Amino acid sequence: MSRLFSLILVIVFASEAVSALDFCVADLKGPQTPAGYTCKSPANVTVDDFVFSGLAKAGNTANLIKAAVTPAFDAQFPGVNGLGLSIARLDLAVGGVIPMHTHPGANELLVVTQGKILAGFISSANSVYYKTLNKGEVMLFPQGLLHFQINAAGVTSVAFVSFSSPNPGLQITDFAFFANDLPSKIVETTTFLDDAQVKKLKGVLGGTN
Amino acid sequence: MSRLFSLILVIVFASEAVSALDFCVADLKGPQTPAGYTCKSPANVTVDDFVFSGLAKAGNTANLIKAAVTPAFDAQFPGVNGLGLSIARLDLAVGGVIPMHTHPGANELLVVTQGKILAGFISSANSVYYKTLNKGEVMLFPQGLLHFQINAAGVTSVAFVSFSSPNPGLQITDFAFFANDLPSKIVETTTFLDDAQVKKLKGVLGGTN
Amino acid sequence: MSRLFSLILVIVFASEAVSALDFCVADLKGPQTPAGYTCKSPANVTVDDFVFSGLAKAGNTANLIKAAVTPAFDAQFPGVNGLGLSIARLDLAVGGVIPMHTHPGANELLVVTQGKILAGFISSANSVYYKTLNKGEVMLFPQGLLHFQINAAGVTSVAFVSFSSPNPGLQITDFAFFANDLPSKIVETTTFLDDAQVKKLKGVLGGTN
Amino acid sequence: MSRLFSLILVIVFASEAVSALDFCVADLKGPQTPAGYTCKSPANVTVDDFVFSGLAKAGNTANLIKAAVTPAFDAQFPGVNGLGLSIARLDLAVGGVIPMHTHPGANELLVVTQGKILAGFISSANSVYYKTLNKGEVMLFPQGLLHFQINAAGVTSVAFVSFSSPNPGLQITDFAFFANDLPSKIVETTTFLDDAQVKKLKGVLGGTN
Amino acid sequence: MSRLFSLILVIVFASEAVSALDFCVADLKGPQTPAGYTCKSPANVTVDDFVFSGLAKAGNTANLIKAAVTPAFDAQFPGVNGLGLSIARLDLAVGGVIPMHTHPGANELLVVTQGKILAGFISSANSVYYKTLNKGEVMLFPQGLLHFQINAAGVTSVAFVSFSSPNPGLQITDFAFFANDLPSKIVETTTFLDDAQVKKLKGVLGGTN
Amino acid sequence: MSRLFSLILVIVFASEAVSALDFCVADLKGPQTPAGYTCKSPANVTVDDFVFSGLAKAGNTANLIKAAVTPAFDAQFPGVNGLGLSIARLDLAVGGVIPMHTHPGANELLVVTQGKILAGFISSANSVYYKTLNKGEVMLFPQGLLHFQINAAGVTSVAFVSFSSPNPGLQITDFAFFANDLPSKIVETTTFLDDAQVKKLKGVLGGTN
Repeated sequence: MSRLFSLILVIVFASEAVSALDFCVADLKGPQTPAGYTCKSPANVTVDDFVFSGLAKAGNTANLIKAAVTPAFDAQFPGVNGLGLSIARLDLAVGGVIPMHTHPGANELLVVTQGKILAGFISSANSVYYKTLNKGEVMLFPQGLLHFQINAAGVTSVAFVSFSSPNPGLQITDFAFFANDLPSKIVETTTFLDDAQVKKLKGVLGGTN
Repeated sequence: MSRLFSLILVIVFASEAVSALDFCVADLKGPQTPAGYTCKSPANVTVDDFVFSGLAKAGNTANLIKAAVTPAFDAQFPGVNGLGLSIARLDLAVGGVIPMHTHPGANELLVVTQGKILAGFISSANSVYYKTLNKGEVMLFPQGLLHFQINAAGVTSVAFVSFSSPNPGLQITDFAFFANDLPSKIVETTTFLDDAQVKKLKGVLGGTN
Repeated sequence: MSRLFSLILVIVFASEAVSALDFCVADLKGPQTPAGYTCKSPANVTVDDFVFSGLAKAGNTANLIKAAVTPAFDAQFPGVNGLGLSIARLDLAVGGVIPMHTHPGANELLVVTQGKILAGFISSANSVYYKTLNKGEVMLFPQGLLHFQINAAGVTSVAFVSFSSPNPGLQITDFAFFANDLPSKIVETTTFLDDAQVKKLKGVLGGTN
Repeated sequence: MSRLFSLILVIVFASEAVSALDFCVADLKGPQTPAGYTCKSPANVTVDDFVFSGLAKAGNTANLIKAAVTPAFDAQFPGVNGLGLSIARLDLAVGGVIPMHTHPGANELLVVTQGKILAGFISSANSVYYKTLNKGEVMLFPQGLLHFQINAAGVTSVAFVSFSSPNPGLQITDFAFFANDLPSKIVETTTFLDDAQVKKLKGVLGGTN
Repeated sequence: MSRLFSLILVIVFASEAVSALDFCVADLKGPQTPAGYTCKSPANVTVDDFVFSGLAKAGNTANLIKAAVTPAFDAQFPGVNGLGLSIARLDLAVGGVIPMHTHPGANELLVVTQGKILAGFISSANSVYYKTLNKGEVMLFPQGLLHFQINAAGVTSVAFVSFSSPNPGLQITDFAFFANDLPSKIVETTTFLDDAQVKKLKGVLGGTN
Repeated sequence: MSRLFSLILVIVFASEAVSALDFCVADLKGPQTPAGYTCKSPANVTVDDFVFSGLAKAGNTANLIKAAVTPAFDAQFPGVNGLGLSIARLDLAVGGVIPMHTHPGANELLVVTQGKILAGFISSANSVYYKTLNKGEVMLFPQGLLHFQINAAGVTSVAFVSFSSPNPGLQITDFAFFANDLPSKIVETTTFLDDAQVKKLKGVLGGTN
């Protein structure tokens, strides 16, 4: 029976290609496309392409925001390529904050696994939605909208955040305004911030012009 | 021949439904779905559902930003529902500016039809891309990224901006930070702006807390 | 300034519809569509539509599989509607197992938050990918492929699983074969299982015929 | 065991909604959306929603084109709603022809099940691809491109055509030009056809103006 | 006139790229992407890229399941690449059966062209939908759900099955469980099948461990 | 602070890949995929990839249709690759006409910026929708449907047309029927046009056979 079954198997799986689109592990050395990276040959794929260990330890929060974001996006975890999903770990030490930011390419779903986090987002209609989340609670942040997370516990808080894309992008407003060479004059004209404020934050964040 | 042809016609177009998905003009009184509004019955659709005259005249720029955005999104122009496209008109008087903002739901393509516009966007990598555009020049602003437009002419400038969604959304950073009841303390913690700066702009834009 | 700014605001946000597609919180009493539920009116949406507390406590594992799956899919957590994301919590007591199953509608990404889990999936090419995952490790399970999770620790293990759809579906193979009225004869013909085996499991799982 | 398993079952399938998106059988009396019809309640769905018998008998080819198209699109076969697939049957009597047409909403895949068919399409680059297909042969017609089928056998030919949409649409060029009230003057200006030719075909196909 | 028309033609079709996305015939030697294979140059495409003759003759049913599946997926029929469609031929000799399986990547639509077929599927809610189909009848099998086909005629039955993807995948449950090196212990723990049953089918299907 | 912030920046933007999918400027020398061209390395992208100047001047209307279409599709404007948008400029001299055509791959949105244009389309149900548009008025043309534009002013008219795809395709009916080697006999059989009419237009447009 086995041999005859196999005949069918041979017909149906005549090409490696048949199984390739079960998944498309990124070939990070290949070109990118609007739909993601080209695929590693299925013949070379192992279970380790589907497992990521980089979120097992805490990110380094010894910085001024007392927080760390550790991504498992396609560039770090090639298995997510083409699957419409990725994940990251947030570590927020006491006093830690993830500054106002957006993900241009994905919706986000956060689950607190340690501590308490004050999290919120602002809609296109400028409505504000925020709440303090306890361990095990989940919150959504729709694609492209400004949001933030602040540690609300007296201990380090941890969360895992899933995204609806293997490459959600990340635009931190302060970095976009102050950490590059966009002329201060343009920043001021388009944000109504005072010149002194712009210059101060450009100084802190390493921006020029 | 006509009668016999018509027999086929009757079979093929037996249901109004067949033609409905050529287009799906929004029934603005119906419920919305993740894919847009429910469709107006094709029997009630006329050419006027596909034509919008609201962009023919200039928006009112007699305001402090000396600029106006006139949208033809699904809520104003129900014909775009489900078609992955919409449009708006920008009027920028002398000194006019469209402040830093994002469209969470669409890419944007701007064409200048009068005057000159200095336009730019900032990528997730904090790179800045900006240029002064002359009449007839086109510029892209990818989805969810911060961007701005400033009149660069000594006269009123006008542009039409197309979007890759019937409802691109619009989040003006200043409005998101300062024009609602998000507590100043949270704004400051998540933006590193000074308290005085936050309070000043909350005052100007009508924010509270 | 505030008043004049607001004029623009009024033009741009003339319709509630503009902000609606930032998100589309499910109206669970409305009809479903191929793209999900119809949307609750944005005017009635509060932060609680974006927060889910049901995963904060452990599922009840006092059953023979010594395991529990607690979903936060659209039917439980209406905020995920239309966002291409959902989440569930797995609790695996000592000896616990999530039996072979598929999610017809989504890719899955698991992160272990307590204990150790032996997890694996089988591809269309019948290749097997499995590994024992420690706390903080992440594993992918591509859409529609058979997979399983087994507690590999001497204590209760916990994981959060994210999905690339608000409604991933769940088909447990044993339930599909043995927990309904599909005639034993058909089950045997299409699975090559022995009659005694089919009858035994139909008995255990409440199937008939 | 059955009872305890069922506990899980109850948790996981707590809502009818969970299974609903396995499929979304069209409620033809409900509204349409850009993604298709609203769904019939899963509780009322039976196997007959997934089976269509209307293609079992030949269409009536006693007409001047000696051909018939029998569709199983969403309006005829509500089970295809939301599934990205539909099907139709072509009957071509001796001398039969399906005139030049496009499907604005779907790619098409034809398989000949009786006789021989000369079929072809024209690309955007005006290249022509045509061939005579024998029984069992398959041909593709990309979305939106002009194509035709002509009986090439001395007997009736039959084919089944699948589409990549539950509602592919159908625009027969002759009907679009000549079977409505589009003024002859406009037809002539935009097609370069002679006035006599336009008037003749308007007459045959029942067009006016 | 021709020459002047051609001037426009030259402008509009200045690049080969314009016509490329009418279709994207797979370059099977190129890399794959999450959206399919890279495209063969349109200049090298001929009608034979859009025609497939491999389904014209019956598959070999001289095996124990007395059935054959002959696919025209992207790997066999490169023209379907990127078109969201593919097709296969089923041959079921007397007593033939296509065992329980899923297509992780596509919905399926079957049309019987010879004989009678008993076909069915099982939903996420464990409901069973099955029926005996006569020649010309059509049945749907939603993506990722277990389904089967059994010859119900005293003669060979034939069907064509269309899929909503150029690469639907195929996971035969018995092959996934018993035709690889997944340890028997894991199979038993995750399926509740008896050790003897698992060992027996592993023996038949060539599995190890 | 800057240095410590930068530590986070380094973690989050560890790979160039993270920012790549903000946009995917086409590498026109690379292969195409069903989702578009492969991406130019983000490191080599400049603002000029997002700006297109080719629509700033009028197309040459010194031809028999007295009209010109100047496209900014992906082949001309690589920045639109993957963004679901493109644009073109229409110039219609006095008496100018854009003949009946379809875009197989995109919806279209036209805005008149000079003069007056009589524009219309025909639905799958053969309904005609047409109107004379003034400067600043906008009209929609759904994907794949036949449409046309005719200058309705005593001066040159100009419009910008946006598309819901970086590569909408363009099939001009007359060119498809008469400007290639499709045999006259087939054209006549599938369009019901008279032999003299077909031969005449083949002559004008350079067709053969």
